Amino acid sequence: MTTTTAMLETYPKPIDLDRRLLAAAIDALTECAETCTSCADACLSEDMVADLTKCIGTNLDCADICGAAARVLSRYSGFDATITGTLLQACIAACSACGDECSRHASMHEHCRICAESCRACLRACQDLLATMS
Amino acid sequence: MTTTTAMLETYPKPIDLDRRLLAAAIDALTECAETCTSCADACLSEDMVADLTKCIGTNLDCADICGAAARVLSRYSGFDATITGTLLQACIAACSACGDECSRHASMHEHCRICAESCRACLRACQDLLATMS
Amino acid sequence: MTTTTAMLETYPKPIDLDRRLLAAAIDALTECAETCTSCADACLSEDMVADLTKCIGTNLDCADICGAAARVLSRYSGFDATITGTLLQACIAACSACGDECSRHASMHEHCRICAESCRACLRACQDLLATMS
Amino acid sequence: MTTTTAMLETYPKPIDLDRRLLAAAIDALTECAETCTSCADACLSEDMVADLTKCIGTNLDCADICGAAARVLSRYSGFDATITGTLLQACIAACSACGDECSRHASMHEHCRICAESCRACLRACQDLLATMS
Repeated sequence: MTTTTAMLETYPKPIDLDRRLLAAAIDALTECAETCTSCADACLSEDMVADLTKCIGTNLDCADICGAAARVLSRYSGFDATITGTLLQACIAACSACGDECSRHASMHEHCRICAESCRACLRACQDLLATMS
Repeated sequence: MTTTTAMLETYPKPIDLDRRLLAAAIDALTECAETCTSCADACLSEDMVADLTKCIGTNLDCADICGAAARVLSRYSGFDATITGTLLQACIAACSACGDECSRHASMHEHCRICAESCRACLRACQDLLATMS
Repeated sequence: MTTTTAMLETYPKPIDLDRRLLAAAIDALTECAETCTSCADACLSEDMVADLTKCIGTNLDCADICGAAARVLSRYSGFDATITGTLLQACIAACSACGDECSRHASMHEHCRICAESCRACLRACQDLLATMS
Repeated sequence: MTTTTAMLETYPKPIDLDRRLLAAAIDALTECAETCTSCADACLSEDMVADLTKCIGTNLDCADICGAAARVLSRYSGFDATITGTLLQACIAACSACGDECSRHASMHEHCRICAESCRACLRACQDLLATMS
């Protein structure tokens, strides 16, 4: 059991979302934000950085969006389906773009391969949570 | 001319967005994020904090989403219309909810009145930019 | 092996820090930021929120500082011992204050108990990493 | 009068800091975070990006640290001199390193010239505020 799940179980009010899917989404978003931040920096350290600028930019966008979404999803008290739904759509768009871009470099750069996997796992977790909200 | 506009003018590549509306959106998002952070803390300091918990939660969500969007909009190199469009939709949802909630307390709390104005100005700046993207 | 460790192993340049302690600090900071965000929201949802405002404020500060530090530590390319050292000092100060405040409420609120533990684990991980830098 | 100053005037409790210097520091940190985010992206778009990777990394660190500090300084309710003091020291270290690095490229890249100025103005605002706290 992750700390996210443990914290969810202590929440003093009802939560209008599937707690398992919510915890999975928060953990996937947190990991994706961290992996994208690392991948951007690893790309920046490659000799062929000039070929990786699009990857760096997409990594940084994905890190910012997923990081903000992890925080918003961790606040069940102010849950608003419109805010959460549109934000999950932005995460799905960012993870899809970043996963595609990173996978283009996956055969040359192991950090891009891991990051592409992290983006796709996050995309699925966001889609699974979003599917329960409509 | 704000520093945001000055920085936009030094950008070495073409930008596929109206630079004036882009700078206005970045500045409005940055100000809204800052104002929402302050308003949450001012609400937390009120004797009647128990009546302001929804306002605090919405303020924190709006601050996180607008802060992330200001960063993403400041990265023209990785511009992706789907990411930017969905993120602006999330900002519009957050600013709308936070503007409404803050305006409910505006007659009692001057910080909520200023914050509601900031949210609405940000909402309009996001809508104006989004309108040029479709 | 966490994703943080896997990403560190793919980094294309030397890293002037103990990789095991660095990965442990990044993971502890990321978890602490997430737990503090959740604890602030759980406190906000308690009927006795008026007694928890100091805890909420300290949680929010700790979340912001640890979140920023996790990102900075994930960028080995721009490693600067002065920046990293002072930032770790700020994390230690925030985790110490937040751990103390949360432990005051730990017997009444399980989320505060878990958060106090998370802050203390993070404090130790930051101290361990800082000790290798001097 | 900026919105930051207006919000400070509505704060319901005493503030143990010089309000003028506090507002100046928050505004300088917010602007510096935004300028560093833009400068990193402009550097990433230059043909000579391989010569600017240190600048990009330092910009990203400075943006994260100053952004977090702007949020922490905006929370007067949980003011803790040790947290704020160490965090301002981290901002001073980051602004000093980023100002130095950007000024090395200032004659070639106008975005680096503007960013160096923004870092130095922020460094001074942090020093001025820190001087009143000891």
